[in-house]
Amino acid sequence: MSKIPVIEMFGPTIQGEGAVIGVKTMFVRTYGCDYRCSWCDSAFTWDGSAKDKVRMLSADDIIVELTELAGNNFNCVTISGGNPALIGEGMMDLIVKLQERGIKVAIETQGSKWQDWLSRVDMLTISPKPPSSGMTTDWSVLDTLMSRIKTGNVSSYSLKVVVFGDEDYEYARTVHERYPDVPFYLQTGNEDVTEEGDISCRLLGRLEWLFNKVIVDPRMNNARVLPQLHALIWHNKRGK
Amino acid sequence: MSKIPVIEMFGPTIQGEGAVIGVKTMFVRTYGCDYRCSWCDSAFTWDGSAKDKVRMLSADDIIVELTELAGNNFNCVTISGGNPALIGEGMMDLIVKLQERGIKVAIETQGSKWQDWLSRVDMLTISPKPPSSGMTTDWSVLDTLMSRIKTGNVSSYSLKVVVFGDEDYEYARTVHERYPDVPFYLQTGNEDVTEEGDISCRLLGRLEWLFNKVIVDPRMNNARVLPQLHALIWHNKRGK
Repeated sequence: MSKIPVIEMFGPTIQGEGAVIGVKTMFVRTYGCDYRCSWCDSAFTWDGSAKDKVRMLSADDIIVELTELAGNNFNCVTISGGNPALIGEGMMDLIVKLQERGIKVAIETQGSKWQDWLSRVDMLTISPKPPSSGMTTDWSVLDTLMSRIKTGNVSSYSLKVVVFGDEDYEYARTVHERYPDVPFYLQTGNEDVTEEGDISCRLLGRLEWLFNKVIVDPRMNNARVLPQLHALIWHNKRGK
Repeated sequence: MSKIPVIEMFGPTIQGEGAVIGVKTMFVRTYGCDYRCSWCDSAFTWDGSAKDKVRMLSADDIIVELTELAGNNFNCVTISGGNPALIGEGMMDLIVKLQERGIKVAIETQGSKWQDWLSRVDMLTISPKPPSSGMTTDWSVLDTLMSRIKTGNVSSYSLKVVVFGDEDYEYARTVHERYPDVPFYLQTGNEDVTEEGDISCRLLGRLEWLFNKVIVDPRMNNARVLPQLHALIWHNKRGK
């Protein structure tokens, strides 16, 4: 069975973002990304700085380690990256085996690549990246992916766009209007992922800014606006 | 048609709590409560201090005022109190008329009183009050209400318990275990609803405390933990 490149596993912790905000979960972070977002808070998953930490693990290896970390103290596993959708059949194996144990699987991916196992996920977050990332959205790829998800068997899925400034906000509106039936989340970003100490005031200032944009914008009546709770609580610490 | 005692209307703003966290919404606050929670953040809805602000309004009056306030800049109305479930048929009229206009209706009530219109609500939050409130839960009333909701036609409903300390946390666990199939939210409270200035540090400290309780507690694997976003952003200001 194919193996999965894993760079870190941790938890249980509380999911800080998106439709699954507040959910108690383990995290499995895969190595490798097709994107290079300027403000990525997990650049160690693709910039080579932590390449020696990558391990090729089977689904069974991962489940053994999660159980060693947390015993029976979790019902949810979030697989993030990097972009976990770069990984093929090893991932299907992991998802199925977790679900067989009654564990729900959440995935976050930017929507740049389809994998058949995406339709098996319990809670799927598609997070296309706005202009401030330096990345360009391939709309035809995203259209195909969104329509496959819609016709697939995903229990629950949503779109999430991180917004750093006005240009990103316009991009977010484009995404929301392109897929109007999909639950849509706006999220403030963290402009400095290396700053030490308490960054909550800075982050809450940005959240207030975004609240105020949405409040006066009728085109965002169905959007939801959320912070990154983990960054408010644990700031820029890793593995939380 | 019966009228509704309304003490304030405001919005659009962003819902800060519970299953509907992050949702853009108008607020309609009804007057009167069967509870007297020690830490109530809206005591003016029952302590008599703002009794001269109460107006008896019909559903049509309310819809006219909401439209004057916000035009077409909202798709959701949250009715809170006080306890809106003290009000009878006027409320059914309001809910139906809002829904006929394509507007979703969210309600928050402590679960101490049933009304038939509760089954018409789009997003219903039942928030039984923990020991720190000074109130006592009548479990047989709550059992009946939860079973009516379950067999009713509510699109989406959840339980939410505010937690100030260890005793409240134990109470929250009792609620969660009594209704294990109902989506369950834990929320930190605001210990001083009159403090002026920036209270976000104090509130985030309590959120970290609650995160850490849930993280080590396997009985809370399916609970979700959230702050009050509006208090993080707008502190103790009213009408936000």
